[in-house]
Amino acid sequence: MFQPKAHSAASDRFRHGLAALEQISAGSGKAVTGSLMETAPDLSRFIVEFCYGDILSRSGIDNRTKELAIIALLTAKTGAAPQLKVHISAALNVGVAASEIIEVIQQMAIYAGFPAALNGIFSAQAVLAEQTTAP
Amino acid sequence: MFQPKAHSAASDRFRHGLAALEQISAGSGKAVTGSLMETAPDLSRFIVEFCYGDILSRSGIDNRTKELAIIALLTAKTGAAPQLKVHISAALNVGVAASEIIEVIQQMAIYAGFPAALNGIFSAQAVLAEQTTAP
Amino acid sequence: MFQPKAHSAASDRFRHGLAALEQISAGSGKAVTGSLMETAPDLSRFIVEFCYGDILSRSGIDNRTKELAIIALLTAKTGAAPQLKVHISAALNVGVAASEIIEVIQQMAIYAGFPAALNGIFSAQAVLAEQTTAP
Amino acid sequence: MFQPKAHSAASDRFRHGLAALEQISAGSGKAVTGSLMETAPDLSRFIVEFCYGDILSRSGIDNRTKELAIIALLTAKTGAAPQLKVHISAALNVGVAASEIIEVIQQMAIYAGFPAALNGIFSAQAVLAEQTTAP
Amino acid sequence: MFQPKAHSAASDRFRHGLAALEQISAGSGKAVTGSLMETAPDLSRFIVEFCYGDILSRSGIDNRTKELAIIALLTAKTGAAPQLKVHISAALNVGVAASEIIEVIQQMAIYAGFPAALNGIFSAQAVLAEQTTAP
Amino acid sequence: MFQPKAHSAASDRFRHGLAALEQISAGSGKAVTGSLMETAPDLSRFIVEFCYGDILSRSGIDNRTKELAIIALLTAKTGAAPQLKVHISAALNVGVAASEIIEVIQQMAIYAGFPAALNGIFSAQAVLAEQTTAP
Repeated sequence: MFQPKAHSAASDRFRHGLAALEQISAGSGKAVTGSLMETAPDLSRFIVEFCYGDILSRSGIDNRTKELAIIALLTAKTGAAPQLKVHISAALNVGVAASEIIEVIQQMAIYAGFPAALNGIFSAQAVLAEQTTAP
Repeated sequence: MFQPKAHSAASDRFRHGLAALEQISAGSGKAVTGSLMETAPDLSRFIVEFCYGDILSRSGIDNRTKELAIIALLTAKTGAAPQLKVHISAALNVGVAASEIIEVIQQMAIYAGFPAALNGIFSAQAVLAEQTTAP
Repeated sequence: MFQPKAHSAASDRFRHGLAALEQISAGSGKAVTGSLMETAPDLSRFIVEFCYGDILSRSGIDNRTKELAIIALLTAKTGAAPQLKVHISAALNVGVAASEIIEVIQQMAIYAGFPAALNGIFSAQAVLAEQTTAP
Repeated sequence: MFQPKAHSAASDRFRHGLAALEQISAGSGKAVTGSLMETAPDLSRFIVEFCYGDILSRSGIDNRTKELAIIALLTAKTGAAPQLKVHISAALNVGVAASEIIEVIQQMAIYAGFPAALNGIFSAQAVLAEQTTAP
Repeated sequence: MFQPKAHSAASDRFRHGLAALEQISAGSGKAVTGSLMETAPDLSRFIVEFCYGDILSRSGIDNRTKELAIIALLTAKTGAAPQLKVHISAALNVGVAASEIIEVIQQMAIYAGFPAALNGIFSAQAVLAEQTTAP
Repeated sequence: MFQPKAHSAASDRFRHGLAALEQISAGSGKAVTGSLMETAPDLSRFIVEFCYGDILSRSGIDNRTKELAIIALLTAKTGAAPQLKVHISAALNVGVAASEIIEVIQQMAIYAGFPAALNGIFSAQAVLAEQTTAP
């Protein structure tokens, strides 16, 4: 399990970020930061402190809208399927319906092209299938 | 002014799309379709019929969320500044606050990089400045 | 098998699109639309009605040139390998020679960079190998 | 005017490339290589020797198809408008009709998104307007 | 002039970042953060605190190599010309020779395509011309 | 094994390129050119003659800086993971430390977004793991 001992004592920003990560992305976010601990622990820390602590925890836009905006962007960014899946999980986690996720991805065909939208739908299918079969 | 005579009688989809374009993008959307009438009238028609009539008029996701998702995507798609500006206008038109648009664009720095976010903010500045000086 | 019952009666555009899909992309196109039927049936319908019915069935540019243009674009769009493979199949289906497909992909190294061209060639190798081993 | 004296004597590849550049891109290609002579003369030479001499002069795909494939790719590559314009000129120069160029660009909306197709059409409008007003 | 009063007292990270910005990007970096102060002051602060304070001030890779790596990346990221120019200035500021900048940009033609390399050279030409004419 | 018989006698540029490929990319570069020999032998030859012979063998920028610049670019070019891995191997081969590669990739999060940096780190992890387990 992900135990970022080194920083947890030193930094309020880290604790704040970890709480935001827990609330928004839950398991899928932790898996990402955990996967970096051996080769790039600082990148892992920046994701917690900066991405979640400074940015994603900001008010001004609610978590549902935020995650749908991120999903729209990552649908267009072909080649970022692993991160798209993390945020499809996060969106479900903060209360977005599967049908809303599908709707946003398919509407993005207009702006990102149909290949990007198709691959986005395939990522959503994979996440939804996993969640159905999880115990 | 944009007078798509050729299609207005023939197609319910076109009328439906034109109504959606009016409601969502108002003047900025019309300027786009109008600019295509001489060289690519069919592309203009597809934007009305398909983009607005079939896609953007769908329910399932409200117009505010939809426009913020489009803004997130176009922020990442460097080189599409004219279209980003159209959708910043459209977002304001459907009731998104300027502060929410700025918030989404700057949060996208995490996913699209800071250069893309910076250029997105500059597009927003240009649209907001125009609206302030408009009669 | 792909049985788009819901729309086949309702829409001339759908029937027209399905005929174009059959003629241009044959099995590879059907596999795509079929894969969407459960999670995103409307996106599947838009691909048939709009992509094939309204756009790809247009005259003005012959199917051979059209497919080579699509292959050039998708070679540059790293991350769209599944769709590139569909259109390599489609190109072969409308009479483009394998050598012409390879030629276009490798010439695109100039505009999209060698990594994109390399990955395009690997997609072509995969499609050609599949066709050789198919019964 | 572009006078690549330094290389013209030394290299058959350069002469071969220059002939291909003349035949395919005429004035628009020369303007590109000329613009590099002061800061990056070697890049200018590589464009002549490699891009035109080794690659674009290859048979296996005719110049018309080649230029339409390049136009498709550059339509998708937002941010490469100057190069898209060079190849719209080149396409007209090797006998592609303006209507075919417009057709390819607008069909690419499916694969690259409508913003990319719109910006492609605007590039085509600019080239066609210039040619109309040229003496 | 850029006077980020609000944060200068509150944050060691900000002061540290501002020092790094001064050292690395000098005037060109300050112009960027300054341009954001009215519409997106928090993004301006994140650029100072995070981009310069946490990331670009890291040791492990010297400033010369760092700026050449950023230039390579931004050359490929068509549509980020303003930021490419900032980092061409920054590279000159940390002691990279103009010839090295040109060399890296033109070599990137292999990986990003010639259009991206060409536009990169044009950005370099613009920065170098400005510096020559500056008092 | 890669035996480019057809060209080795005919071309000094090919021999020069092959020597550069050996020196810079060693086994990983050879695997790439070898994988193209059956379907696209000319692309294989251009990689040797042009990419390695004309471009990557240039002085003006040392091999270490060159490979780190290429790694930065390919980190941003999502979808080019196979080529990123080749150049991570090449960087190690010309004397770049693993820690420097990780450092450049994670700093690129600022310019290419965190998803691109994450996928870059995963590519580095894969190459480093392979090297550890190689006999």
